Amino acid sequence: MSFNTFGRVFRFTTWGESHGPAIGAVVDGCPPGLAISEADIQPYLDKRRPGTSRFTTQRQEPDQVRILSGVFEGKTTGTPISLMIENVDQRSKDYSEVAQAYRPGHADYAYDAKYGFRDYRGGGRSSARETASRVAAGAVARLVIPEVRIRAWVEAIGGDSIDPANFDPGQIDANPFFCPDAEAAARWEALVDGARKAGSSLGAVIACEATGVPAGWGAPLYAKLDAELAAACMSINAVKGVEIGDGFDAARLRGEENADAMRPGADGPEFLANHAGGIAGGIATGQPVRIRVAFKPTSSILTPVETITRSGEATEIMTKGRHDPCVGIRGAPVVEAMVALVLADQKLLHRAQCG
Amino acid sequence: MSFNTFGRVFRFTTWGESHGPAIGAVVDGCPPGLAISEADIQPYLDKRRPGTSRFTTQRQEPDQVRILSGVFEGKTTGTPISLMIENVDQRSKDYSEVAQAYRPGHADYAYDAKYGFRDYRGGGRSSARETASRVAAGAVARLVIPEVRIRAWVEAIGGDSIDPANFDPGQIDANPFFCPDAEAAARWEALVDGARKAGSSLGAVIACEATGVPAGWGAPLYAKLDAELAAACMSINAVKGVEIGDGFDAARLRGEENADAMRPGADGPEFLANHAGGIAGGIATGQPVRIRVAFKPTSSILTPVETITRSGEATEIMTKGRHDPCVGIRGAPVVEAMVALVLADQKLLHRAQCG
Amino acid sequence: MSFNTFGRVFRFTTWGESHGPAIGAVVDGCPPGLAISEADIQPYLDKRRPGTSRFTTQRQEPDQVRILSGVFEGKTTGTPISLMIENVDQRSKDYSEVAQAYRPGHADYAYDAKYGFRDYRGGGRSSARETASRVAAGAVARLVIPEVRIRAWVEAIGGDSIDPANFDPGQIDANPFFCPDAEAAARWEALVDGARKAGSSLGAVIACEATGVPAGWGAPLYAKLDAELAAACMSINAVKGVEIGDGFDAARLRGEENADAMRPGADGPEFLANHAGGIAGGIATGQPVRIRVAFKPTSSILTPVETITRSGEATEIMTKGRHDPCVGIRGAPVVEAMVALVLADQKLLHRAQCG
Amino acid sequence: MSFNTFGRVFRFTTWGESHGPAIGAVVDGCPPGLAISEADIQPYLDKRRPGTSRFTTQRQEPDQVRILSGVFEGKTTGTPISLMIENVDQRSKDYSEVAQAYRPGHADYAYDAKYGFRDYRGGGRSSARETASRVAAGAVARLVIPEVRIRAWVEAIGGDSIDPANFDPGQIDANPFFCPDAEAAARWEALVDGARKAGSSLGAVIACEATGVPAGWGAPLYAKLDAELAAACMSINAVKGVEIGDGFDAARLRGEENADAMRPGADGPEFLANHAGGIAGGIATGQPVRIRVAFKPTSSILTPVETITRSGEATEIMTKGRHDPCVGIRGAPVVEAMVALVLADQKLLHRAQCG
Repeated sequence: MSFNTFGRVFRFTTWGESHGPAIGAVVDGCPPGLAISEADIQPYLDKRRPGTSRFTTQRQEPDQVRILSGVFEGKTTGTPISLMIENVDQRSKDYSEVAQAYRPGHADYAYDAKYGFRDYRGGGRSSARETASRVAAGAVARLVIPEVRIRAWVEAIGGDSIDPANFDPGQIDANPFFCPDAEAAARWEALVDGARKAGSSLGAVIACEATGVPAGWGAPLYAKLDAELAAACMSINAVKGVEIGDGFDAARLRGEENADAMRPGADGPEFLANHAGGIAGGIATGQPVRIRVAFKPTSSILTPVETITRSGEATEIMTKGRHDPCVGIRGAPVVEAMVALVLADQKLLHRAQCG
Repeated sequence: MSFNTFGRVFRFTTWGESHGPAIGAVVDGCPPGLAISEADIQPYLDKRRPGTSRFTTQRQEPDQVRILSGVFEGKTTGTPISLMIENVDQRSKDYSEVAQAYRPGHADYAYDAKYGFRDYRGGGRSSARETASRVAAGAVARLVIPEVRIRAWVEAIGGDSIDPANFDPGQIDANPFFCPDAEAAARWEALVDGARKAGSSLGAVIACEATGVPAGWGAPLYAKLDAELAAACMSINAVKGVEIGDGFDAARLRGEENADAMRPGADGPEFLANHAGGIAGGIATGQPVRIRVAFKPTSSILTPVETITRSGEATEIMTKGRHDPCVGIRGAPVVEAMVALVLADQKLLHRAQCG
Repeated sequence: MSFNTFGRVFRFTTWGESHGPAIGAVVDGCPPGLAISEADIQPYLDKRRPGTSRFTTQRQEPDQVRILSGVFEGKTTGTPISLMIENVDQRSKDYSEVAQAYRPGHADYAYDAKYGFRDYRGGGRSSARETASRVAAGAVARLVIPEVRIRAWVEAIGGDSIDPANFDPGQIDANPFFCPDAEAAARWEALVDGARKAGSSLGAVIACEATGVPAGWGAPLYAKLDAELAAACMSINAVKGVEIGDGFDAARLRGEENADAMRPGADGPEFLANHAGGIAGGIATGQPVRIRVAFKPTSSILTPVETITRSGEATEIMTKGRHDPCVGIRGAPVVEAMVALVLADQKLLHRAQCG
Repeated sequence: MSFNTFGRVFRFTTWGESHGPAIGAVVDGCPPGLAISEADIQPYLDKRRPGTSRFTTQRQEPDQVRILSGVFEGKTTGTPISLMIENVDQRSKDYSEVAQAYRPGHADYAYDAKYGFRDYRGGGRSSARETASRVAAGAVARLVIPEVRIRAWVEAIGGDSIDPANFDPGQIDANPFFCPDAEAAARWEALVDGARKAGSSLGAVIACEATGVPAGWGAPLYAKLDAELAAACMSINAVKGVEIGDGFDAARLRGEENADAMRPGADGPEFLANHAGGIAGGIATGQPVRIRVAFKPTSSILTPVETITRSGEATEIMTKGRHDPCVGIRGAPVVEAMVALVLADQKLLHRAQCG
């Protein structure tokens, strides 16, 4: 089945393929009366946009978003907000090889196995290009949760991690890697450039923090805040792991090490630690919500790999053309968008039940 | 909001609190004509049942399941299957302390922040006891997917991992830890016993593998097989991380290391590796589906921890009474159940769209 | 497919067959802190209960409801409320005829065509008994919408309508027909008794009015208040038609006759008419919400009717045993329940989006 | 709340306002491999298109549909199909009156009450223009159910009904009224023309029949085939009533009159009548599915009607500009589309559960 809608009451639906005429999103359930224009969305698309440095794919897409509905006199009306982004740089190339053989690591074989055939041009629907629609929808979600501040960054590339001691939020937008550690950013230049030149690719870890999430948001048990965040992030192409708070590290701790002790604070409790990542029992505790997301290395590489053709014969394939040497880098604005979309939904859900 | 239903077309809804009269699940959308009786469900509940060894809570619950609807003459009718498990051993104890103060690491504060008050007896709805309902529903799901074999085990406790070289599936049910490595199981006896005696607790990592999942199951993009698995497992109490395939390790690999090359095989492609964990683009590839789940240490510990009362005053609390020294151990049958529930849903979804 | 859940954020799931051990409902998404006990639910079940007069089936069911979860110290906790009603009077009779031949007008043939077999005892899942679960859930819904008053009555039986001039709300609960017109009630005694004695049955029209619904409730375009009411009522067994406001009569009017003119009133507009039945564009206008529902005559009759057996041979069948001579009568409390359930959901949805 | 998505597994989402740049629909869950192009959709839009006779609004809209995604090499890929129709003839007129006062019968007041303000240009989202999106989506749905033939017609206008004895399906597309009775069509010319010239409007009844629906489709109990049809049709602007089979007439029958007796037939049972409209217990019986839908008269009339302004003062309003004298006429292709959309969804649901 195909399920291209996400959310319970604040919902969005995305559509579009890498090489079709356009991609887009329909955002439904948005509260009325929020001031909005394309200018509120474009900056987020610009952060995710390809072709801005030599560390991302060279596809040139202006990614200009148009609002087609749901806004009147500069404000949301409460009706569906249709967002469209035209595809401009669908380079006409020869896809005959990709059409006939499966690129390992890509969704080629799986789509064929499911649907019997596939739109092979640039990966079709399974292209990372789809995430532009998420980012556009996420920009609308942010307007719904002005009390929340969401910030994602790249924590590691190819196994090379930032040094927490060097964490400087001001750095995140100061380098092409969304890297909060200036020294790591410098190292990554060489690392990513090397992978690019070698026709190879690198994985990455994205961290994201949302501050200002009020205690109480969350919809236990099967739409828990952490479960929704996990689904939202795992639905991003190339993501293979999600952690909340200490994540897998928590599995190594003892109970007394993992407890987030509390003291009386000025506004509710003051927590002495945040191993939980701001979520307990699926409900926000008021602490910062912390999530980590693992991106595998881009599957498109210039090294020939053993594979089979559609008719089942042995062959080799290597992916020509433009690609991100580390698709995780542009994952940072996408993770931010997904977190915003989940939180907007959870805010409205909480308001529905608890007034 | 409260969302206690999971699934798209094969759906289940759970209800019940730790110390209410009963807990249960309603399974809806099950195909008709499947042979079923309580005896098909009970063995899975018995695996999860507390009180079977000194390594789990000493609460004595027979966890006898009753089928109240949806079955006629020994077969599913296609109508909702109502499953009920009575709570037997709700020990009458003094809850006044838990009622008045928040146990760090527990959902106490979050539930109060959300709902204004909470059923504090044994954790109420946020108790691990709820997972018995999942296991019962999961047993029904297994009947829907006879082509699939699901097997979970404990991979690490308190940071002490099994040795893959010792992996012996026959061991999993031969020790109280669902541990496939006899040597590790021996070590864990002392480890868990020590934690129990010290009033401490340990985290754990559960691994789960589903073989026989046909290529093609999966509902991209927002009900991808991996996204659904992530949501399903993250919705289990105490889970803080989910990985598909290589998970966070994939973020350290290069593209050529991570590619699962293919060769012609007897039945479709033969894969030379399975970094992807059997899922590409959110769709099963036909390889074993592999998932890892991190459980934090049980929050109930006998060490006093700083906390606050409902009225905001400083105090200390330690959790008296019965608890699992490592809640992750009993997580193994729960993860199996959630994987079964997701796969049953995805099987029906695939059949809906692709015939 | 089987879909036994209704609602978007205030949701309920029903389960159970006519002759199983019990039936029930799970209500999810209920706001916390509402005072509730079985005594708040039982009176509505008593109104729907069979066996209270000679004009309904003689099956004797006490329909005692039990709350199994979601309530603590007399208040809803925000977690799922599990309601169970045991089946007591499943008369052991010989079902061999019904098992082998299809009763015309019943769901027998359709269930067999869909599922391959069916629980034929008393109609199984398609029995009107299922509506007891709705009524129980509806009683919970009423607590969510204390600002609304819902009142249903029988407007016509077998084509014999009440005289609007005789409408007296005080009469509704004063006769076994939920009839607001004492004269009609007197006529219906003979009418229904005659049908019962003749082994025949009668159709009925139920009208329902909800006052106090605030302007603004409604979720356009595909969960419009009127669309949800139509779905809710058409899902009741034996219902064949639904009208909002003037319904089919509106199709005979001219635009100027149908316009509900407005004047300034004390609290918002004063409407000069209510052809619309309190709903415009799928959104409540603040006027009384008016709905009419057509129930077909009970399909169980003592007249032999031509039919076929499961193996496709010609035969005749007549329904022995207990049945309602006019199932529409007991439809009145069911329609009330469905209206309450829809309005509770719409109230929460409105609060979600519009604060 | 705003819910602009309909369907369970074959789903569509519509967006757009009367006077925005475009309207559209996203169809999700469509099976792959179906041959499709704009030419499969356009004829249905042309049937619904305004401005084709003097009996419909004079707004000139070519209603050219564009497929933006989900189709590759002329076939559906299984991914979302985005359909867009540009608004061309949004006549620039003075909306100041409509902006400031509520048109009785319209959704003006209700939208303001819900959302605090509204896009008043041409009715915004509550315009009948939205139904073009439904018709486009419905054309896709038809491809999913080639075994079904759906045919709607106008049965009555302003209380003047067709004579069943004159029913000639060949007439339906031979006059501007979708009228199967040539004599009635002749009468309606004068009737509708008179209403138009008088600045008045007329209601209508649409009948629709779907043949070839296999026994077994339907998703009891809360997504019954009839309940879904009722919701689908009641969600169309201006609809106030829905009947399945005999509808309200069934409420006047006795059980023996209403029974659809069965005999052995060539392919399963031969029914001797179809009072049920092809649905029993919410499941298709294999007989033709019959539904009737009541449209109120167009609310836009040239007669001044008492109303209030946004600030609550008394005024009068009459609707200038273009409008349909009988909006029900163009309702025929819309009802067809909604029936197709429901049936496509139910087909896939049935396949999901019952294989």
